[in-house]
Formats: sequence, C-alpha cells, structure tokens
Amino acid sequence: MKKIEHLGIAVKNMEDSNVLFEKLLGVAPYKQEEVASEGVNTSFFQNGPNKIELLASTDPTGPIAKFLEKKGEGIHHVAFEVDDIVAEMARLKSEGFTLLNEKPKKGADNKWVAFVHPKTANGVLVELCQEIR
Amino acid sequence: MKKIEHLGIAVKNMEDSNVLFEKLLGVAPYKQEEVASEGVNTSFFQNGPNKIELLASTDPTGPIAKFLEKKGEGIHHVAFEVDDIVAEMARLKSEGFTLLNEKPKKGADNKWVAFVHPKTANGVLVELCQEIR
Repeated sequence: MKKIEHLGIAVKNMEDSNVLFEKLLGVAPYKQEEVASEGVNTSFFQNGPNKIELLASTDPTGPIAKFLEKKGEGIHHVAFEVDDIVAEMARLKSEGFTLLNEKPKKGADNKWVAFVHPKTANGVLVELCQEIR
Repeated sequence: MKKIEHLGIAVKNMEDSNVLFEKLLGVAPYKQEEVASEGVNTSFFQNGPNKIELLASTDPTGPIAKFLEKKGEGIHHVAFEVDDIVAEMARLKSEGFTLLNEKPKKGADNKWVAFVHPKTANGVLVELCQEIR
C-alpha cells in the first residue's frame, strides 16, 4: 500500500459534478473514460500525488446506480496503489480479508484493480490498483 | 488543495479497528489522540504521502456517534491539505460552497481545520487542513 492512488466519488450527473469538482479542487479533469464492463463513466482530477475519480452510472443495474439508490451521492471507494497486486491480494487474503475478485481485472486509467469486501474492512470499499506496464 | 492529507474513517471499536487497519495497510498507527471538543478518539496511519485517520466516538451525542447510527462504519470525510486555510475558505465561499465553520478551528494532528457542507459538495464531507506552524 504505497499511497492513496485515488478516491472514488459516486455522482448523479457527470456534467454538473465536473463543474463542481473543478471549483472545489481548482483544476480541470484531465481525463474522462467509460468502463463499459462496470457500467460507469469516470472523470479524473489530479490533486498532488493523488487523484479524485468521479463515477457516474451508465447502467441502471450496475454498481454505481445501486450505490446512488441506496446511499446517495458521496464517497464510494478508496484505492491504494500497490507494486504487485497479485502478491498484495494473497497477503490480504491470508490476513482474513475477503476479496471481491479472484484475479485482477482491467479498471479505468490503465490499471489492474481488485476490491476488498467492505464487510471485512470496516465498511470501506477498498480497491487495490497497479499500473499496467 | 495540495493533496489528500488524510481520509477519515468512522469506526465502532478503536482497538479492533487499529488491528484491522494495521493488517490492511501493513503499518502500525503512529499516533492516537483525543479531540475532546469533537467527542472523538483518533488514530493515525501513515500511507506514503497520505494518512488514514480512524475516528471513534467518545460522546454519544457527538458527530461520529450520529454518523455511525445513521450510516454505520465507513468513510466519514476526506481532508485536503492547503497552504492558507483562510484564503481557501474565502475562495470556496465565493465559488458557492457552504462552510460549516466561520473560522478555522484546532483539529487533531496539529492542524487548523474547516469543513465544507456535504450538501454543497456532492454528498462528500470535505475538510480543509493546514499545519499549525
């Protein structure tokens, strides 16, 4: 766990939220990317060594749509950068954490990603991510 | 907004959660501190350029007790480091954000802090923090 790579925030309307977060962070988004497999549109803001990732749903049955319905807009997950995602997944499993993925999958922003079940992590949806080289 | 200074996570039992986050992050907490004015105990973990702050309630009518009752354990707020908290508060106010504090107040970990109302920030409780020099 090298740093907070990004913080994922679920939003209802990407256009409105891009304007809002540009005002909040004082910087424009540097990338917008659809992750069709997850049913989301993403928008990324750089903030020093960290990023903010806005997540809007493109699929009414997808994870962000469900989150918005249940909890409303707000922080959805925290992603930690790791050097070796496979080793880190094995380490967390051996420490008693439940992983939501058997193997890393391709996420947004050129990353291998895997998630830890929030029930085993104090209610926090934790993402591990490793740059695809 | 220079970086994510820390991510605040509301927990029910500090002892259990210290063990859990030490396993998750692979590092022990470097500091525990009570903030009596907020009715919380805090515990800090370093994670590269960022920190994780666990928040346990010491006051059944305090903000963390209320958060836990309403939403359960999970991410409570994100704190951004700023150089000049007074100037940043004025900038955000002029951009239409509602601040929860008129003036910066003393927070944990030797910081001046102020909060942005989540209703004006996509459901995210945003903290500004500046090191007390």
